[in-house]
Amino acid sequence: MANVRSLEELLKSFQQFKSSIDLKKSPEELYSPVEYMMDMEAKRIRPLILLFMTELLNGHQNAAMSAAYGLELFHNFTLVHDDIMDQSDLRRSKTTVHKKYGINEAILSGDVMMIESIWYIHRADQLNSTTKLTELFIKTAREVCEGQSMDMAFENKAQIQMTEYLEMIRLKTAVLLACSFQMATVLSQRTDLFESMYQLGILLGQSFQLEDDWLDFYAGTGEFGKVKGGDIIRGKKSALILELMEPFSEQERLHFLEFYAKNKANNDFLNEINSVFEKYNIRNKLRLRIEDYKSKAIEIIAGLKISSVHQDLLIQFIKKIFERTY
Amino acid sequence: MANVRSLEELLKSFQQFKSSIDLKKSPEELYSPVEYMMDMEAKRIRPLILLFMTELLNGHQNAAMSAAYGLELFHNFTLVHDDIMDQSDLRRSKTTVHKKYGINEAILSGDVMMIESIWYIHRADQLNSTTKLTELFIKTAREVCEGQSMDMAFENKAQIQMTEYLEMIRLKTAVLLACSFQMATVLSQRTDLFESMYQLGILLGQSFQLEDDWLDFYAGTGEFGKVKGGDIIRGKKSALILELMEPFSEQERLHFLEFYAKNKANNDFLNEINSVFEKYNIRNKLRLRIEDYKSKAIEIIAGLKISSVHQDLLIQFIKKIFERTY
Repeated sequence: MANVRSLEELLKSFQQFKSSIDLKKSPEELYSPVEYMMDMEAKRIRPLILLFMTELLNGHQNAAMSAAYGLELFHNFTLVHDDIMDQSDLRRSKTTVHKKYGINEAILSGDVMMIESIWYIHRADQLNSTTKLTELFIKTAREVCEGQSMDMAFENKAQIQMTEYLEMIRLKTAVLLACSFQMATVLSQRTDLFESMYQLGILLGQSFQLEDDWLDFYAGTGEFGKVKGGDIIRGKKSALILELMEPFSEQERLHFLEFYAKNKANNDFLNEINSVFEKYNIRNKLRLRIEDYKSKAIEIIAGLKISSVHQDLLIQFIKKIFERTY
Repeated sequence: MANVRSLEELLKSFQQFKSSIDLKKSPEELYSPVEYMMDMEAKRIRPLILLFMTELLNGHQNAAMSAAYGLELFHNFTLVHDDIMDQSDLRRSKTTVHKKYGINEAILSGDVMMIESIWYIHRADQLNSTTKLTELFIKTAREVCEGQSMDMAFENKAQIQMTEYLEMIRLKTAVLLACSFQMATVLSQRTDLFESMYQLGILLGQSFQLEDDWLDFYAGTGEFGKVKGGDIIRGKKSALILELMEPFSEQERLHFLEFYAKNKANNDFLNEINSVFEKYNIRNKLRLRIEDYKSKAIEIIAGLKISSVHQDLLIQFIKKIFERTY
């Protein structure tokens, strides 16, 4: 029971497995971008969740490692293709794959990463004598595409409700985190926890994403500091904007969005928006929503049929892995 | 034994299955392009191979149908992404997906088609109580990406040998045909035929592709007709060009490729190339290579441990399915 390794040990073990993989080298044009992407510094959140949970539930560690690698490959595939779609130049402070190797190469290397990811998930299923990991993973992968599609469509859509936004981030981000938690239950014959793990992953994923939007504006501001707000400058309909419009009538929404689209590039606009947020108490409203999600996550953990020592370990783990440095 | 349905009946049965599938509709931006692509008129070669072979070997028809649909989805995913990379405007005489819906939408819809394809293959494995279909399919899918990567790289490569070209078309085209044949052996507990089916699929795929290149120049010419040669006009290093250069020294290759690159757009160039091909007997040389592959395919069929009636049926089927209308 005490043999749950620390986050650092699990990360080291994952990196060792990753290095041990004999990545195909030929054709070089196909596999170099894969190597470049996978070698970037990254937090490896999804693999760590799966490895930690599998240890906690005393499951099949070898199979977990294969699936963990598959999850990380898949996550990186989505980043490669998303960066093409968003025309991003930088990812983790490095040149994006399509900027470095070309768009066609990034499309194709992304494709092969996705295929490889399923290879490692399927391998985990074989090691574990199950088929459920592959099934869950394909379902999740499909949902991630749906989330990305919604995200792209939102750019051209005037009206978005908070519920739609929550559904988008559930699909785009949260389901893959949930999948990482859920897989551990398959690898430990604890599928009685399958549904709770899903709920936990979704709540954490959504609160993480909402917090991203909150921090984009308020990180490092303290009580009277200066706001940043890259999202606002880019005119993004972030969670703060949606929180603001939540009680608005349709007329008011249209009116505000017009004002938002027109003024976003202005120098004083951040201060102006800041005042609006203050007036409507948006800073706290969104913060409360995030805290609500977090406490629901804790409630779920408290209800899990695992020892209270393990519950505590899980809470510590989650705090650490979703920790922000800002 | 006599209950192997005709190609027309199998196609009808496949189309019925396809129509019965409750394709997800939401988000519309993601699934409309999938529907558009899958509803184009197409020959359904891969599904037909699998369905026919499974009937011939008396295998699991329901599972075969699911896998057949997966094969067709995957094939169409490759077309959607290839058309982006090749910047093609037309596919099967219709607007390509990225031209109709946008590049980002085509990338993402292609992604979800690939994910869905594995869903249907995995479903077939579950129906058949195996895991081998998924394994074979992922291996094949990876190779198809490798073939596409080689094809893209060839454009910028001065020197290509016929053996490299054959390897490229093996990966890009032939392995998926081979996979369609091989899956039938898994679905009928006839994995003793697994290797022969692979060889058969590769030979047919390669000869089909070589014939494509041959026909691009010589289709409808008769003995003294006018050559067409879209490949040549586009400066493509097609099988005819590689056949021509096969006995050349490195010096001669460079010399010829320079001449080729410089003159391809000229009006008289097709006639000039035609004379060169005549002088070196390329028309017959490539034709002989194609016929050699075809007779090797027949040899494999003659060696299969199935009844001679079934061998004949298989030969008739292959002739029909790879039939050209020109």
